[in-house]
Amino acid sequence: QINSDRLWSTLEEMAKIGATPAGGCNRQALTDLDRQARDLFVHWAQEAGCTVEIDEVGNIFARREGTEPDAPAVLAGSHLDTQATGGKYDGVYGVLAGLEVLRVIHENAIATRAPLEVAVWTNEEGCRFAPAMLGSGVVSGAYTRDFAYDVQDKSGLRLRDELERIGYMGERAAAPRPYAAMFEAHIEQGPILEKEGLTIGAVTGIQGAYWFDVTFTGQSCHAGPTPMEMRRDPWDAALPVMAGVLALARANGPWGRATIGDVRAEPGSRNTVPNTLTVSIDIRHPDADTLEEMVGQLRALVELECSAHTIESKIEQVWHMPATAFDPALVECVASAADRLGYSWMRMVSGAGHDSLHTAQFAPTTMIFVPCADGLSHNEAESATISDLAAGANVLLQVMLEMASE
Amino acid sequence: QINSDRLWSTLEEMAKIGATPAGGCNRQALTDLDRQARDLFVHWAQEAGCTVEIDEVGNIFARREGTEPDAPAVLAGSHLDTQATGGKYDGVYGVLAGLEVLRVIHENAIATRAPLEVAVWTNEEGCRFAPAMLGSGVVSGAYTRDFAYDVQDKSGLRLRDELERIGYMGERAAAPRPYAAMFEAHIEQGPILEKEGLTIGAVTGIQGAYWFDVTFTGQSCHAGPTPMEMRRDPWDAALPVMAGVLALARANGPWGRATIGDVRAEPGSRNTVPNTLTVSIDIRHPDADTLEEMVGQLRALVELECSAHTIESKIEQVWHMPATAFDPALVECVASAADRLGYSWMRMVSGAGHDSLHTAQFAPTTMIFVPCADGLSHNEAESATISDLAAGANVLLQVMLEMASE
Ligand SMILES: NC(=O)NCCC(=O)O
Ligand SMILES: NC(=O)NCCC(=O)O
Repeated sequence: QINSDRLWSTLEEMAKIGATPAGGCNRQALTDLDRQARDLFVHWAQEAGCTVEIDEVGNIFARREGTEPDAPAVLAGSHLDTQATGGKYDGVYGVLAGLEVLRVIHENAIATRAPLEVAVWTNEEGCRFAPAMLGSGVVSGAYTRDFAYDVQDKSGLRLRDELERIGYMGERAAAPRPYAAMFEAHIEQGPILEKEGLTIGAVTGIQGAYWFDVTFTGQSCHAGPTPMEMRRDPWDAALPVMAGVLALARANGPWGRATIGDVRAEPGSRNTVPNTLTVSIDIRHPDADTLEEMVGQLRALVELECSAHTIESKIEQVWHMPATAFDPALVECVASAADRLGYSWMRMVSGAGHDSLHTAQFAPTTMIFVPCADGLSHNEAESATISDLAAGANVLLQVMLEMASE
Repeated sequence: QINSDRLWSTLEEMAKIGATPAGGCNRQALTDLDRQARDLFVHWAQEAGCTVEIDEVGNIFARREGTEPDAPAVLAGSHLDTQATGGKYDGVYGVLAGLEVLRVIHENAIATRAPLEVAVWTNEEGCRFAPAMLGSGVVSGAYTRDFAYDVQDKSGLRLRDELERIGYMGERAAAPRPYAAMFEAHIEQGPILEKEGLTIGAVTGIQGAYWFDVTFTGQSCHAGPTPMEMRRDPWDAALPVMAGVLALARANGPWGRATIGDVRAEPGSRNTVPNTLTVSIDIRHPDADTLEEMVGQLRALVELECSAHTIESKIEQVWHMPATAFDPALVECVASAADRLGYSWMRMVSGAGHDSLHTAQFAPTTMIFVPCADGLSHNEAESATISDLAAGANVLLQVMLEMASE
C-alpha cells in the first residue's frame, strides 16, 4: 500500500511552483518554473535511491535497478508542465504517483526482477509549444529531434534554446528502449467516472483529434464610412463556420467534440474591419472514420461560406492525433488489480491525448484514470480527492510490481 | 492657387516615416515614428514663417500672425498618427493641406486680418490609445487632461509617459481659445464621392457611434474529454451576438454600420474551452434615435443569448461619439468656394469621427472631403489622386482667406 498522506503532501509541495491566486498552476513547458519543478522531482527521485538520466529533448528518467538489470524496465510517468490556467493534478499526478511507488519500494527494500523507471515527458500540454506530447513523440519516432528543437512559442522562442536555458538538454538518445510495460496514472479530465460513481478507469485507448488553424482573409476598411454591402468582412464567413463546427460536434454526439480555443483578428483595431482572422479548431471523435467525416464537413463548410462571401481561406493542419488502442493484456492487468484491491472500476476511452499515445508505439501501454470533480480540467479549479488519488497510486503499485516480477 | 506638386511631394515625404512594405503607413500615436513626423511638420512650419506651440496633451499649433493679432484665428488641421495598417492620407492630408496653404500665403507675402493656425491633434486614430480623437477632445472639454494622461495602450504604457518620452509634453493649456472657424480637409474614407463622380464634399456633420467591449464568461475545460452538453462555452452566446450585430447594421441600411474589430480569447489555448471572450463592437448610425435603438437591440441580444447559454456578460461602453452637426454658414462657405473654383461638389455626412467633432464644440467648424479610391481607408492600399487632393487644398485656401479677411 502506498502512503496516501505522503502522496498528497508531495502533490501540494509541487503545486506551489507556479501556483496561481485562483488555486491552480501556471507552469508552462521549459519556463523557469518548469525548471524548478524538474529540479524538485530529480531531488526526490535521488532521495528514493534512483539514478536520473535526461535525454536530448529534456525527458527525465528516474531508474531503480532490478535484480536482472538487462530485463526490459517497467515504466510509469506523465508530465509536470501545465496549461496557463491549469490545475494541480493534470500530468503531475502520474509523475508523483510513480514517485510514490518508487518511495514505497525503496523504504521496504523490495527487490524486483525488472528495473523500474518513472518518466517526466517534456511539453505535454502543447499550450506553449505545439504540438502537444512532443517529448514522448520524439522518443516514439512520431517527430524527429530536430523538428522538436525548431518549434517556437508565440513570442518566437525556440524549444531547443529554452531547453538549454533551463539546463535540461541531456545526452541520452531520445529513442525507444525495450520496455515491458508503461502505465500512466491520470485524472480522467472528464465527467464519466464521477457520474458512474466509480473509482478506477482502465483505459482501452485514446480518441482521435485534429488541430487546425483556419485563416479567413477579407479586406480591411474603415468601420464608419464603409457601407455594409461594400465590405469583405472575414467575420461573414468565419462566424457561420465557427457555429457550424460546434454544431457538427453536437450532431456527432455524445462523443463528437469541437473547441475554438483561440482567435486572432488582424490588425485588431476597433474601428477597422479585420483583414484576417485566424481561428484555432480542435475536433475529436473516438471513431477514426467519423472523425474523418467531421473534418470533411468542416472543409466543405469553410469552402461554402468563403465562396459565398468572397473571402479567401487557408486550412492549416497543426496536429493530428490518430485514435489509438492500448495493450489489452495490460488493460486487464489494471482491471484485475482494481478488483483485488476492492475498487470499483470500468473500461473507458480517454478523451484527451496523453504521452501514452506515443509510448504505445514502442511499449505495451495503458492508463489508470481516477475521477476529478465535475470532470473539470484545464482549469485552475481542477480537483480530486485524496482517496481517489491514493486508489490510483495503489493500482499503479500493484501493476508495476506484477509486471516487474513476472 | 496652391502648388499641387509641392503638396504631393510633401505627402510622399511624410509617408516615408513608418512606411510599410505594402505601401501604407504604420505610425501610431506617440511612437518614435510619430515623433519623427511631428518634428518634420514643426520644421516645415517654421520654414514657412510660423511660430509653433505645443499644448499639455501634445497638440501642435503652427501660427502665422494676422494684421490684427487679437482677432480670433482661422484654424485648419487634422492628425499625423495612423492605424497599424493605415494609409498615407487619412489625417495627414488635412495637416499638409493646411501647411500648403501657409506656404502659399508665406511665399506670396499675403497679409490676412486674422491669424492663421494649423493644428496637429494628438492620438486621433484610437487604435493605440482609446478613445480616438483624444487630443482635440481634451481641448474641447470632452475629456479632462488627467483622463487623457492615464489612458494606456495594450502593453500598459501610459499616454502621459509616452508624451514625455517623445518630447511633446508642451506648456500651452489644453483649453479652447476663440477661433473664427475651423476647417478640416480629409479623404472621404467612403465610396460616395467616387460613386457620384464628384470632387468635393461639403460636410454637414458626423454620424453617431458607440464603441463597446462585450465580455462573455463561461467556464474553461478540456477540449477532449468534456462532452459538448456539459460545457459552458462562451462562443455559444458570443457567435449569435456577433452575427446578430452585423445583421442589425444591415437591417438599418444603408446607413447602419457594425464592426467587430478585435476579439480576445482567454486563456487562448488550442485544447481548452475559453473561459472569457472579449469582443470589441463599433456600431454607427447618422440618426441618433436609430443608433440608440440599435444599441438597445444589441443589449437585448446579449442578454437573451447569455441567459440561454448560462454565460455571464458585461457590456462596457468604451466610447460614445454623438451625432454632430457642423456650422451651416461654413458649410455654405465651402460649397460656394468649390463652385467658384469650378469643382463639382455635394453636401454629405461623415461616416468617420474626426477632430472636427470636438472643435465644433468651441469653434464654427466644417470639413472638406475629397474622394479616395474604392472608398478604401484604414488600409495600406488607401489612395487618392493628385488633382483631387489639390482641389481640396484649393478650397481650403479660399475659405481660410475668406474667413481671415472678413
Ligand atoms: N492530457 C492533456 O491535457 N493532454 C493534452 C493533449 C490534448 O489536448 O489532448
Ligand atoms: N477618421 C478616422 O479614422 N477617425 C477615427 C475615429 C473613428 O473611428 O471614426
